[in-house]
Amino acid sequence: MTDRSPPTYFPAPRLARFCSQCGAPTHRRVPDDDNRERDICDQCGAIHYQNPRMVVGTVPVWEDRILLCRRAIEPRYNTWTLPAGFMELGESTAQGATRETLEESGARIALGALFTVIDVPQVDQVHLFYLAQASGPELDPGPESLEARYYDEADIPWDELSFRTVSTTLKQYLEDRRRGSFGCHHYTLDWHR
Amino acid sequence: MTDRSPPTYFPAPRLARFCSQCGAPTHRRVPDDDNRERDICDQCGAIHYQNPRMVVGTVPVWEDRILLCRRAIEPRYNTWTLPAGFMELGESTAQGATRETLEESGARIALGALFTVIDVPQVDQVHLFYLAQASGPELDPGPESLEARYYDEADIPWDELSFRTVSTTLKQYLEDRRRGSFGCHHYTLDWHR
Repeated sequence: MTDRSPPTYFPAPRLARFCSQCGAPTHRRVPDDDNRERDICDQCGAIHYQNPRMVVGTVPVWEDRILLCRRAIEPRYNTWTLPAGFMELGESTAQGATRETLEESGARIALGALFTVIDVPQVDQVHLFYLAQASGPELDPGPESLEARYYDEADIPWDELSFRTVSTTLKQYLEDRRRGSFGCHHYTLDWHR
Repeated sequence: MTDRSPPTYFPAPRLARFCSQCGAPTHRRVPDDDNRERDICDQCGAIHYQNPRMVVGTVPVWEDRILLCRRAIEPRYNTWTLPAGFMELGESTAQGATRETLEESGARIALGALFTVIDVPQVDQVHLFYLAQASGPELDPGPESLEARYYDEADIPWDELSFRTVSTTLKQYLEDRRRGSFGCHHYTLDWHR
């Protein structure tokens, strides 16, 4: 923190130092009938629970080629990802995955089945990817993407992918495609990169 | 809110009226490079994102009977549920489901495959249930359960179940069991009860 203008992107950390309801300082302790520490407001009684977040995305395909987006944001700036992002309030995972695909790549898709569910406990996230069929080759990447393009299997930039959830989903997709049958797959990523 | 002692259970609402990082009042507006309103702190720059939560649970089975717990807490006090609860930071969905099963019923289980993924956008939740094999018939319900017991299929209290995610998962479990093959199933619940 400095005395200059506020940073332009500062997602609030998990720790709640002050109460979001009344502004009083919080205290960290185990509430009654609970078994783990929470940030608690002794002034108004609010308990500030924190829970893992969901990231939702798609594997968009056009004529057997797979859509990847080059990230214009941190983390993993300038690496390639499947279109995906944080699920928002008021939407389903399917709606979130469709929205993120449009926002990051401009691709219009017909959403298919839920394809991968990947636990990433080291960052308190669960990633979900859907199968998706693009309705055309047109792309129009948004501000979070430097570029978006369709890749033939042979050209996928495996060494420049953004996240293990992306490489895991891509490998499973190619394996299922070779087998001619797509399932719903669950993974838990371990703590080693 | 009154001037008496704080309520014993007051989960902080989604709206952040004050900044969790510096305690200043927030303002609700669309941040730069975003497309929806957030609670923003103009003093320190923190953006208070809100995202859906995951509920994780199991379908514990002992000798073809299914474990249900009678809820000792609101919402849906005194109705029957599969053991499940909010996923916590630092755990996988599998670890959370196992923990909730132990906490609510005392059942020791061998966790099976991910069985249902159910979107509940009307309450900003996604529910995940795993298959589970109990290692014995012993039960020891915790403070969130009035009672826990194993039900034969014919005795399941369909009219006294807690949530549609529970009835949906139970029906799918019985259907898959009849067919002799368990899949991974995805549902989105609509807004009608």
